[in-house]
Amino acid sequence: MARINDNYLKLQAGYLFPEISRRISEFTQANPEANVIRLGIGDVTRPLVPAVLKAFHEGVDEMAAVETFHGYGPEQGYDWLAQTIVDKAYKPLGVDLKPSEVFISDGSKCDTGNILDIFDLGNKVAIGDPVYPVYNDTNVMVGRSGEMDDQGYYEGLVYMPCTEENGFNPEFPKEKVDLIYLCFPNNPTGTVATKEQLQGWVDYALANDAIILFDAAYEAYITEAGVPHSIYEIEGSKQCAMEFRSFSKTAGFTGVRCGLTVVPEELMGTTATGEKYSINKLWNRRQCTKFNGVSYPVQKAAAAVYSDEGWAQTKEIIDFYMENARIIREGLTTAGFQCFGGINAPYIWLKTPAGMTSWDFFDKLLNECFVVGTPGSGFGPSGEGYFRLSAFGERDNIVKAVQRIKEKWGK
Amino acid sequence: MARINDNYLKLQAGYLFPEISRRISEFTQANPEANVIRLGIGDVTRPLVPAVLKAFHEGVDEMAAVETFHGYGPEQGYDWLAQTIVDKAYKPLGVDLKPSEVFISDGSKCDTGNILDIFDLGNKVAIGDPVYPVYNDTNVMVGRSGEMDDQGYYEGLVYMPCTEENGFNPEFPKEKVDLIYLCFPNNPTGTVATKEQLQGWVDYALANDAIILFDAAYEAYITEAGVPHSIYEIEGSKQCAMEFRSFSKTAGFTGVRCGLTVVPEELMGTTATGEKYSINKLWNRRQCTKFNGVSYPVQKAAAAVYSDEGWAQTKEIIDFYMENARIIREGLTTAGFQCFGGINAPYIWLKTPAGMTSWDFFDKLLNECFVVGTPGSGFGPSGEGYFRLSAFGERDNIVKAVQRIKEKWGK
Repeated sequence: MARINDNYLKLQAGYLFPEISRRISEFTQANPEANVIRLGIGDVTRPLVPAVLKAFHEGVDEMAAVETFHGYGPEQGYDWLAQTIVDKAYKPLGVDLKPSEVFISDGSKCDTGNILDIFDLGNKVAIGDPVYPVYNDTNVMVGRSGEMDDQGYYEGLVYMPCTEENGFNPEFPKEKVDLIYLCFPNNPTGTVATKEQLQGWVDYALANDAIILFDAAYEAYITEAGVPHSIYEIEGSKQCAMEFRSFSKTAGFTGVRCGLTVVPEELMGTTATGEKYSINKLWNRRQCTKFNGVSYPVQKAAAAVYSDEGWAQTKEIIDFYMENARIIREGLTTAGFQCFGGINAPYIWLKTPAGMTSWDFFDKLLNECFVVGTPGSGFGPSGEGYFRLSAFGERDNIVKAVQRIKEKWGK
Repeated sequence: MARINDNYLKLQAGYLFPEISRRISEFTQANPEANVIRLGIGDVTRPLVPAVLKAFHEGVDEMAAVETFHGYGPEQGYDWLAQTIVDKAYKPLGVDLKPSEVFISDGSKCDTGNILDIFDLGNKVAIGDPVYPVYNDTNVMVGRSGEMDDQGYYEGLVYMPCTEENGFNPEFPKEKVDLIYLCFPNNPTGTVATKEQLQGWVDYALANDAIILFDAAYEAYITEAGVPHSIYEIEGSKQCAMEFRSFSKTAGFTGVRCGLTVVPEELMGTTATGEKYSINKLWNRRQCTKFNGVSYPVQKAAAAVYSDEGWAQTKEIIDFYMENARIIREGLTTAGFQCFGGINAPYIWLKTPAGMTSWDFFDKLLNECFVVGTPGSGFGPSGEGYFRLSAFGERDNIVKAVQRIKEKWGK
């Protein structure tokens, strides 16, 4: 009798984003004339930049002749892409990595989910609250939790509330944990951690023999000097942290699919018999067995992001989105909303007015302003009463959305 | 203390193909002048066909303008690609599927590994022997097995020997199993199953409440009429089978990355409390949470494979490879080798001469003929004494390789 993985039944019915899509499509079917502006899922809207397009086309062209055709590539990604990332994304931060420590993948969502494959089920896991739902749900799916309680917390997972009181920087867990998810710049709150705060986490992880799973998918959006872009800017981090990065938000690759995971050679886990074992070696084995590398033309396109021309063009788009963020943040603040984030991240985290629930605010915003955002409660119980607006979008739409919200709420 | 997944330590040191690469690179470093012909990994060598290249470029071009840009796509793949597959790959076989039963992915290797996520660890798994190593290794990695014994079998997995005696068609397991991997046309033996044989498997699965994981990655290479291309040509199969397919071998996508998994709505697993639960729903949830869809231009390219023009061009390449297979098969038979496969599959499975081990034959072939193949024992204990040659390659090389082997062994 083929038995299913019953852990899946513990999950809430709708994964956040499909549920949002469902409500939008219900609304647009009922109101076909409404000009709905989507600041919800956080998907990029600007086209790929010319340098990236050129390299992408060249990659496709290489597939047209026997001499330049590429079949199976390395499961870890091509060396030249890993080397480019080492040189262009890390060296300027003062971080030295080897290409063999960089694993190219088809995206951070996959990696942050699949990484659980290489860890024992008995590990205690700490996640933020609110949090990118993938961290929570993949741990539930793999069987690390019990059932969800009335508040929305799963038994067995350790939640670290991120609230206005602690500046959305989680406090150290009260119980001993083995794997700690951190995401800075944070999704959904748009907040960042200082070097000192991250040093605190690294020291904590080292002292507790824990591993930090650091999600830096939004690092390119940091505008303030001094804010760390990588966990590896922190002393001791190579012994206790892996880092996830993505071309999705950095370079508009959400539909192109390319990301990467850094696993330093120094990073060790512990076997059942108490010996140290290389996490790099484990992840390599996982990827070699269950993954077949990223599309060759996509890797060519990704490398072009870090060419001088490519980066200049890419940076312009990031600046464009961050100008959107400024417009949203300032507009909503003027309208009387309390806003967080939006300075070093493309997300504005706002407090819902008059104590409305996040989903009520979602429905109200959709029905009255034709604007889609993401309910904070979808990211965890501590997100209740908050709402995420994304700065991805065309300028007209951003301005229009802010205007509609101001008209509705601003007095 | 971050504990690793100790199941990984049960795996043999080298995954088969990396080990082959290692030996080749050792050899070529010592013999830089040797013209090594690789008929090992089974990677395609012919360029993408013009219709596919055109669509691939068009897909990239769409990413150049706001109006046609594609960000996140459906995790399940675009409807138009799923519909194309339903219409062009299945309807001609008399198989009716819905697009929602087709999940587009970045390849069959990923899917056949990741599919284990949705099944309970307690399921008994049956795999062929020899077998595509991914089925075996992913089950070991997930913790479904004990240690490997001296013969190379992992405790707790059920192996179905495929030998000359049973025509490389596995016999039904003697103990009750819940998940059964079948691969036809078979990798590595190149053999196929008749409709009657597959009907036997479907009846067996239905009678035992088991699920068949049917790998049809090589179906496009079937040349003989009457040989089933899909498990869904078999009555009752939708209640007991999912099917994996790939553009890798069909259309030269090994470096482009696109595959698909069919999960019929009728297919049910069983929960802990004995209720039936939709496998389609489970896999959908898995993909929505841990995967972010396939690169948009890649999906455009994949759809073009099934255009009239694209398929005519694609079929030419398949015919080209199958002519290679004929040359290898006939050449080696003339040289005195006993050969299997190579008629409905791009693999020739040969018996090593004079009872040599597979790896000894590998080394001899590499050192004396500069030809790389794949040791049969790498696919499982029953593969010992066999050797796989792949028909992927340029004609010159195929002819040269056969000639060298004939010179060495043919008398």
